[in-house]
Amino acid sequence: MSADSVRIGLLGCGTVGRAVVRMLDEHGDTIERASGHRLEIGPILVRTPGRSRPGIDPGLLTDDPARVLDDPGVGIVVEVMGGIDPTLDYLRRALESGKPVVTANKQLLSREGPRLFEMAERSGTELRFEASACAAIPVIKVLRESLLAAEIRAVTGILNGTTNYMLTEMARGGLSYEASLAAAQRRGYAEADPTEDVNGADAAAKLAILSSIAFHTRVRFDDVPFAGIDELSAEDVAHAAELGFAVKLLADARLVDGGVSASVAPMLVPLGHRLAAISGADNAVLLESGTAGEIMLVGPGAGGSETASAVVSDVLSILGTHRGSFLHNALADAGRPLLGEDQVESAYYLRLSVADRPGVLASVASIFGEEELSIRTVVQKGEGSEARLVLVLHRGSSAAFRRAVRRVALLDDVHETPVVLRVLGAGAGG
Amino acid sequence: MSADSVRIGLLGCGTVGRAVVRMLDEHGDTIERASGHRLEIGPILVRTPGRSRPGIDPGLLTDDPARVLDDPGVGIVVEVMGGIDPTLDYLRRALESGKPVVTANKQLLSREGPRLFEMAERSGTELRFEASACAAIPVIKVLRESLLAAEIRAVTGILNGTTNYMLTEMARGGLSYEASLAAAQRRGYAEADPTEDVNGADAAAKLAILSSIAFHTRVRFDDVPFAGIDELSAEDVAHAAELGFAVKLLADARLVDGGVSASVAPMLVPLGHRLAAISGADNAVLLESGTAGEIMLVGPGAGGSETASAVVSDVLSILGTHRGSFLHNALADAGRPLLGEDQVESAYYLRLSVADRPGVLASVASIFGEEELSIRTVVQKGEGSEARLVLVLHRGSSAAFRRAVRRVALLDDVHETPVVLRVLGAGAGG
Repeated sequence: MSADSVRIGLLGCGTVGRAVVRMLDEHGDTIERASGHRLEIGPILVRTPGRSRPGIDPGLLTDDPARVLDDPGVGIVVEVMGGIDPTLDYLRRALESGKPVVTANKQLLSREGPRLFEMAERSGTELRFEASACAAIPVIKVLRESLLAAEIRAVTGILNGTTNYMLTEMARGGLSYEASLAAAQRRGYAEADPTEDVNGADAAAKLAILSSIAFHTRVRFDDVPFAGIDELSAEDVAHAAELGFAVKLLADARLVDGGVSASVAPMLVPLGHRLAAISGADNAVLLESGTAGEIMLVGPGAGGSETASAVVSDVLSILGTHRGSFLHNALADAGRPLLGEDQVESAYYLRLSVADRPGVLASVASIFGEEELSIRTVVQKGEGSEARLVLVLHRGSSAAFRRAVRRVALLDDVHETPVVLRVLGAGAGG
Repeated sequence: MSADSVRIGLLGCGTVGRAVVRMLDEHGDTIERASGHRLEIGPILVRTPGRSRPGIDPGLLTDDPARVLDDPGVGIVVEVMGGIDPTLDYLRRALESGKPVVTANKQLLSREGPRLFEMAERSGTELRFEASACAAIPVIKVLRESLLAAEIRAVTGILNGTTNYMLTEMARGGLSYEASLAAAQRRGYAEADPTEDVNGADAAAKLAILSSIAFHTRVRFDDVPFAGIDELSAEDVAHAAELGFAVKLLADARLVDGGVSASVAPMLVPLGHRLAAISGADNAVLLESGTAGEIMLVGPGAGGSETASAVVSDVLSILGTHRGSFLHNALADAGRPLLGEDQVESAYYLRLSVADRPGVLASVASIFGEEELSIRTVVQKGEGSEARLVLVLHRGSSAAFRRAVRRVALLDDVHETPVVLRVLGAGAGG
């Protein structure tokens, strides 16, 4: 399949816009191999085209929206400028001229979504907006496509990472609201002005978008009552913990007697509930459905690269949709070699039955030392004349580990075949 | 948008096939409203068309594959018969005649996937297979479409619900392997012959499919070394727990130095890791990517209705793909009313500052009693002349709760404004 080239007109060039440009610069070849599409950027609408932007060709910058919206060479318009005015007007012009639009604008979608959908429908083109809620977590695609027929009953989520980070800190460290906000700002999880995050408005806009799709009902931002964590006291977080609950800022929309109930508020979540375990700046969305059961999606709900990833996936969905299929990526063979288990590193657990005699551990440990494998934990448990030696090793060569285990098994004081299990590394994997 | 009718030819009519028929019977109208497509079933290929099947029109049954494969009225072929021979031949015939195919067949996909993709490509048609791994969890769509450009680095999952249920029981109840298998069979989570589940083969087939897509590399079932839990002892599960690990049957595929390492084995997972928290018969897949961060999908990985839901979503993806967009469902307005917060039931948490005097709790309790709200927990904490009264109420009318709180706030012994938080119900929601 030969690649075809598609030009993307960009409205806005802030954090997300720059991340989109960078992603196509760095991964354009991979995207082309996987999707069959070569994505080109530009023109880019900005307020001050004269200002230099590292990594961006100044010739692509313009302050004239017509250069993006009316250029027949632009195949898809990507809107990452935010706001409602003049953004709504720009998107209307793009859609009316038949250009597909990808937007990351939750304010606009949660207020003017229905009008935008109608414009797209009238022009027979597409509007995609994965990045408008929960960044790279593909909850919109899953709701619109995978669970289209699944009879969704409830959408319950942690849709704001800033406040989830703050609540996690309040619960773990007993921090006050103010101290947790300062911690979130230090970590880059909160803006200088965190109002929309902490008062629940950000989550309410996302919930309006998600519940509109889930329930085929026009839920607008103004329809979603919201409360934030700005009036929550550390005392209540502590009381809740004593009673067996985590406090989470939950966005919850559900069908009740044929109607839709939607709201955002700090809520007590039983500690055994899946959403209680979502900690730090993560987002999570739990989708309850009649036919597909309960499906939960978890991941980073913000970030330039993550949001750009959602934007690019929308672009590829539009291209896939219009050109027949996503088959290409099943056929694209990157020709990577398959590695045997002994070619990779891993950490291991090992259980030995040994004679309960001094010196056994020393013999075992010296074999691992000779194979340059380092022991993280040893537990020895006597059981009469027999003892159990349980070892967890640090990450190392699997081949060396196998050699060491073969040598250990030959020791006179080691009885029975050693039991070996791999240990999943923290982040670095198996 | 007017609905168009699409006829689905079904190969096989076992648990999943019957669930597909039932889903279209029960939810056909909703699907039509949401998608714009009327899905009709039949003909259905079975071995014994004479045998009666409740809820299925006998006139649709046939034992002649040509009636499904060569009928120009059949728009999409859905394969839920399983096996490799003659299934591969049937799918080849369908694809070569240009019919899109949806399959739930992990054996076939994990062995003959590349050949099937090439057949579809040559005929310019589609092959979809969401149901072949993890039932309704939309991991294949997410990998193929949402994360197509995200540079996946690792796919790590609990891909077999039977063994995860067994391991959960072994860890919680200290059950032996045999006892946990018997428990899984009693609960309907294990087949009479559980071999492919417990020895890791089932998870290895799913991992072959997922890693092929994630890494654009032809990973076949035979390429994935697998071990199961059939030789795991309860002793090692207990040792692991003492050392701070859960034991999970993990399917793990990752890029290592440009190659792909893929295997299935029981592994130790640190208790703080997301996958350690996945309990019972759930499946979970953790996708680590360069640009989109770590995304996890959790849900039921088996079940007739769940698998049928994935099949139907593939059918709708094919129709969406071929007919322009998923826009329809954003426009389909089910006209559901939006409910105010006081129109729904909820459980509540309430914190009062009260005078530390006998009788306060009695006054508060009697107001809730009069409003027919039932108290689940009360904790009273004295602090000098002031005390804290923390109450958690059972689920009840929100309007009645608001009335009760207004009355409580007026009591002489209640100081400050009461603090009110909602409590997420177990399953029943907010």
